[in-house]
Amino acid sequence: MPSDRLSTTFAALADPTRRAILARLTSGEASVTELAEPFEMSLPAVSKHLKVLERAGLIARGREAQWRPCRLKAGPLKDADEWLERYRRFWEESFDRLNEYLGEVQRRQKKHGRNTAQMKEDKNV
Amino acid sequence: MPSDRLSTTFAALADPTRRAILARLTSGEASVTELAEPFEMSLPAVSKHLKVLERAGLIARGREAQWRPCRLKAGPLKDADEWLERYRRFWEESFDRLNEYLGEVQRRQKKHGRNTAQMKEDKNV
Repeated sequence: MPSDRLSTTFAALADPTRRAILARLTSGEASVTELAEPFEMSLPAVSKHLKVLERAGLIARGREAQWRPCRLKAGPLKDADEWLERYRRFWEESFDRLNEYLGEVQRRQKKHGRNTAQMKEDKNV
Repeated sequence: MPSDRLSTTFAALADPTRRAILARLTSGEASVTELAEPFEMSLPAVSKHLKVLERAGLIARGREAQWRPCRLKAGPLKDADEWLERYRRFWEESFDRLNEYLGEVQRRQKKHGRNTAQMKEDKNV
């Protein structure tokens, strides 16, 4: 298991339940019971996910003995976003290439359409 | 092992060697041997990482039997970036709060500084 910060962040995000927990926390603090509700999952199973998120620094938990509310900590997500930043030009370039290709196809279709129309006109003459 | 696309992407990114391979591929296609060079890693070990990246759709490999160059495919990174997008306001808010706090500290220090200077002046009178 790699121990660098970015790997820990990405590993924590590599689970749909953990991402859903983070999404829930965007609307405010929540207790483990509240977080468990939508998942039809046992409290220990949810607690396990929370531990992974806490170790990754993606959530913080209150210190009240009875109610230890969880809240989102976005710092590691910022680092992940900064890592992705350098790849942005690649998907933008891919999009540009796709766009260019589609433009080419459309131009060809128009040309073909015009030729067909021209042929019809020729026949009508 | 979760099988949804985003989880597969994040799991593939949760390793420093795999991220380094992607970083290398930003400067163009490379063979397995070329990719293995900086890592002091066996070719089979590198091939294993490449398989994870390929399954995640993060790289594509040429079909030439002798030389199967790898190239970056940025599509899944775009999806990861879009997922992170909704959390942006949280780290921006955190930064705003930190900035506000630092401003407050500076204002207090200035006030304290002025008071100390005033006291010195008072003594000199």
